[in-house]
Amino acid sequence: MHLDTAARDDLATLIVTGPDSPGLASTVTSLITRNEGNIVSLDQYTTDPQNGEFFQRVVFHRNGLAAAEPDIRMDLAETLEPYSMSFRLTEQRTLKRMPILVSKSAHCLVDLLWRHRQGELPVTIPLVISNHSSVADDVRSFGIPFFHVPSQGPDKTAAESKLLDILKGNADFIVLARYMQILSEDFLDELDVPVINIHHSFLPAFIGAGPYRKAKERGVKLIGATSHYVTKDLDEGPIIEQNVTRVDHSMSAEAMQAKGAYVEREVLSKAVRLHAEDRVIRDGSQTIVFD
Amino acid sequence: MHLDTAARDDLATLIVTGPDSPGLASTVTSLITRNEGNIVSLDQYTTDPQNGEFFQRVVFHRNGLAAAEPDIRMDLAETLEPYSMSFRLTEQRTLKRMPILVSKSAHCLVDLLWRHRQGELPVTIPLVISNHSSVADDVRSFGIPFFHVPSQGPDKTAAESKLLDILKGNADFIVLARYMQILSEDFLDELDVPVINIHHSFLPAFIGAGPYRKAKERGVKLIGATSHYVTKDLDEGPIIEQNVTRVDHSMSAEAMQAKGAYVEREVLSKAVRLHAEDRVIRDGSQTIVFD
Amino acid sequence: MHLDTAARDDLATLIVTGPDSPGLASTVTSLITRNEGNIVSLDQYTTDPQNGEFFQRVVFHRNGLAAAEPDIRMDLAETLEPYSMSFRLTEQRTLKRMPILVSKSAHCLVDLLWRHRQGELPVTIPLVISNHSSVADDVRSFGIPFFHVPSQGPDKTAAESKLLDILKGNADFIVLARYMQILSEDFLDELDVPVINIHHSFLPAFIGAGPYRKAKERGVKLIGATSHYVTKDLDEGPIIEQNVTRVDHSMSAEAMQAKGAYVEREVLSKAVRLHAEDRVIRDGSQTIVFD
Amino acid sequence: MHLDTAARDDLATLIVTGPDSPGLASTVTSLITRNEGNIVSLDQYTTDPQNGEFFQRVVFHRNGLAAAEPDIRMDLAETLEPYSMSFRLTEQRTLKRMPILVSKSAHCLVDLLWRHRQGELPVTIPLVISNHSSVADDVRSFGIPFFHVPSQGPDKTAAESKLLDILKGNADFIVLARYMQILSEDFLDELDVPVINIHHSFLPAFIGAGPYRKAKERGVKLIGATSHYVTKDLDEGPIIEQNVTRVDHSMSAEAMQAKGAYVEREVLSKAVRLHAEDRVIRDGSQTIVFD
Repeated sequence: MHLDTAARDDLATLIVTGPDSPGLASTVTSLITRNEGNIVSLDQYTTDPQNGEFFQRVVFHRNGLAAAEPDIRMDLAETLEPYSMSFRLTEQRTLKRMPILVSKSAHCLVDLLWRHRQGELPVTIPLVISNHSSVADDVRSFGIPFFHVPSQGPDKTAAESKLLDILKGNADFIVLARYMQILSEDFLDELDVPVINIHHSFLPAFIGAGPYRKAKERGVKLIGATSHYVTKDLDEGPIIEQNVTRVDHSMSAEAMQAKGAYVEREVLSKAVRLHAEDRVIRDGSQTIVFD
Repeated sequence: MHLDTAARDDLATLIVTGPDSPGLASTVTSLITRNEGNIVSLDQYTTDPQNGEFFQRVVFHRNGLAAAEPDIRMDLAETLEPYSMSFRLTEQRTLKRMPILVSKSAHCLVDLLWRHRQGELPVTIPLVISNHSSVADDVRSFGIPFFHVPSQGPDKTAAESKLLDILKGNADFIVLARYMQILSEDFLDELDVPVINIHHSFLPAFIGAGPYRKAKERGVKLIGATSHYVTKDLDEGPIIEQNVTRVDHSMSAEAMQAKGAYVEREVLSKAVRLHAEDRVIRDGSQTIVFD
Repeated sequence: MHLDTAARDDLATLIVTGPDSPGLASTVTSLITRNEGNIVSLDQYTTDPQNGEFFQRVVFHRNGLAAAEPDIRMDLAETLEPYSMSFRLTEQRTLKRMPILVSKSAHCLVDLLWRHRQGELPVTIPLVISNHSSVADDVRSFGIPFFHVPSQGPDKTAAESKLLDILKGNADFIVLARYMQILSEDFLDELDVPVINIHHSFLPAFIGAGPYRKAKERGVKLIGATSHYVTKDLDEGPIIEQNVTRVDHSMSAEAMQAKGAYVEREVLSKAVRLHAEDRVIRDGSQTIVFD
Repeated sequence: MHLDTAARDDLATLIVTGPDSPGLASTVTSLITRNEGNIVSLDQYTTDPQNGEFFQRVVFHRNGLAAAEPDIRMDLAETLEPYSMSFRLTEQRTLKRMPILVSKSAHCLVDLLWRHRQGELPVTIPLVISNHSSVADDVRSFGIPFFHVPSQGPDKTAAESKLLDILKGNADFIVLARYMQILSEDFLDELDVPVINIHHSFLPAFIGAGPYRKAKERGVKLIGATSHYVTKDLDEGPIIEQNVTRVDHSMSAEAMQAKGAYVEREVLSKAVRLHAEDRVIRDGSQTIVFD
């Protein structure tokens, strides 16, 4: 199966968010109808019936969408302005550009490249960057350009500057597929696109270095992974997806880590799909996920 | 926690189904708006963008719902009639009446009674019927009337007639919580309310008597349960919910069955909640579940 | 199904632990053979092939076990002494006495009482104690004595003294089934039997009051529960069992907590069964679980 | 991580099976001790305390294992002969040779190749055979020989003869990683090594062509996969491993199939690891799995 792009023609995804008020759903759906769109799916959620926040995801079909899109966009802007609502309108045939940053561990990277090649992720992968060169062959075997940007000690300015040269203007969002460098706040500000990260998770949490060793010492029975948007607090951004797998006393910390890697790839690939399909809406420290 | 009925006042659930056509979502949401309702949640699904079937579940808040309900209902009937759409409008404060039928095994029954007492199932349980008397004390300790209707050999006419005497007019839907009698087609027709059943399930399936023994012989690694609406084919109605649990070679067929009982209670209780909250829409041999 | 005690006659469970050395398995199994025992199941684990720790669980059948038990015990003591090994020998027909402490939330309590009545937990439940009286009826409906020991402000001495009066000599282990009082170190020392606790768990962890509110704010996608032995650090003892369930943005903190309660009861009931069947061996801050 | 072969030196895995009798565990462990082996792990299971079948898996360390192995083997043969027991002794440094057969769908194949390259599967993969050529590049990018053996209509004699030419003498077991050809009984007899297959599974089962379409029509909520040994009845051999994933009404049969492919790869990779590590013992129509 390859991504069926023809089937995506004339399909649009609309995200509407803002303060809830009576009649919002009607306002949006009427707008789509008068612009000759036919709604294919609609998810809507309000945090509170009284003065809550409103979140809506609508997929609609419109013959000749590309030509009509500017008019629909103008209608949306004018219609939603009095309600102080924000919107995001995307044509599904326009794939998001998703560069991947990775260090040495290739589990997550390879799973993304593989699912992309299977046509299961509606993105393009313009390039992969690593601070190591060990994954170069893997990446190129998928026909995707690879860039080596070594990390250079505590001063990350030069390395981040190189990353920006490569990424700026070439990314709609970025995936950290086990990229073990902390990105500076300046870098994230400059980049100005969503960044999705994956990291291991435990119940309870183990902070700092050697988390699997600590988890082993504590005898945990589950290990997991969390994918989230990157904010200034590296491992604290809004959560997109989580999952766990079972471990036991007979597994070494290394064996737990190896098993955890497979949870990480499943969780990250799912988070990427959800984001690529515009199914995730950020709401402060959390996410609304319409899956 | 007890069921917060005050919080349910003025909340309505609307289900709309029928052949899809452009503008349906707008039609429904505009109707709610002009009837002064404020949409709290909205789920919508269309089987196919071209000539598919349309399924919508809307929860809305309307001050003074009880008084306004006849007008809204009339508006719905008139508005949807040209589209050949069906609708179902329920006030959330009106709890569905859910009699339970059970045989000897009480796992599922007790879990339903318990969750109901916790205020987690928006139903009333007017009575419990069993063809055995072993669960009578359990039922009565929850303050719920118990009726003993013995099954009487191959001719079920008399027993089913007694069941009908008790159930007719007292049920919005019925739960078979491990009720081991096959209900006749006539009985189901006469009853004319949805009936929800639970049964064990395996991959692969084992037909006929002694399924756990067969599953043990075949060395299955998962056992499961399926909750579904009862149709003429007892175990073949539209599926509402399924789940599984892990077993291994060291478990006897009896141990598998005991473990399976806990999957059954989880699955049935979830299916009951989904149905009670009007989250399940039947569509021929399958269900649309907006959870 | 009731607990089949006849089937437990003449079955013994032997736990052997200590520093690994060559020939240990042979030493133990030969001992069982020369004492006319027939091994039914055997699990063994060594932390490291070189100088590791040795953990073994053996279930064996011995005709006339009760009469032979003192001799077997003496043989074990003499045989294992040179190896500096410890052992624990229990007859399976001797059920462990398991008092339960609980506060207001009855989910876990009722599940334990229910499974016990089903014959699925090889324990006796001599009594239940609560610092509230709300669960008294539930407990007594199972035919089990209930004691009300109110907690009395910051000074727990008097309350703990009453608990000790009731528990001392009547417990082989104790279960805290959502008992919301912190037990003093002195109390635990005086009690001197294993204490099993259950608490909610998240990835990542949320410390302190209002964990479900914090989890909601952070938008977690999984919530879980951990059952562990109580040590001086209340929520930090060796983990016996963990599990999780899925939640989403549409659930309030209260709804998450209600769903979490069902994970807690599953996890605690499983932990209790594992302990009651002598399947858990403590090893410092962790557990070896032979399930 | 690459497979740590040095760590596998001097480690042996012993499987003992046959009719249970008192003292068997002692007999085997004493034998290991007198052959200077140190037991690292031991799992044992008896189907019934009275006249059951005995299954044991022992991993032991023995300095200079390679030189001592013939003596240990002779001792085993002589010692177990009076008990009518069978045994299988393998040195862990001797990796099993595992050719893979595949058709067009590469999910399972690529996951096996990837895990193998990560050092997580203790096997060698001498070659991959397909009746299509579409996976040739994937296979060769892992440095593994690829053979194209087209299937040739209803008479499979010629194709199976070619398969035998390639496989005979080069395989300790064979994996069908979505190989869509039915293998003849003669071929399996001639091959005479275990063959592991993977196929989709549902609750309930759907027999014949188009299972995902049927599952969609029936509205299943779980889809799964089963890995099993191949017997004359292609999809009916002893089950090694199973798992499931959740689906819903919004997924097409194709989307279900795509999601099912990821369950298949997890299940098959786990089954292969279990078999490669000698953790699976066949017992008629079922398996004992010591994991």
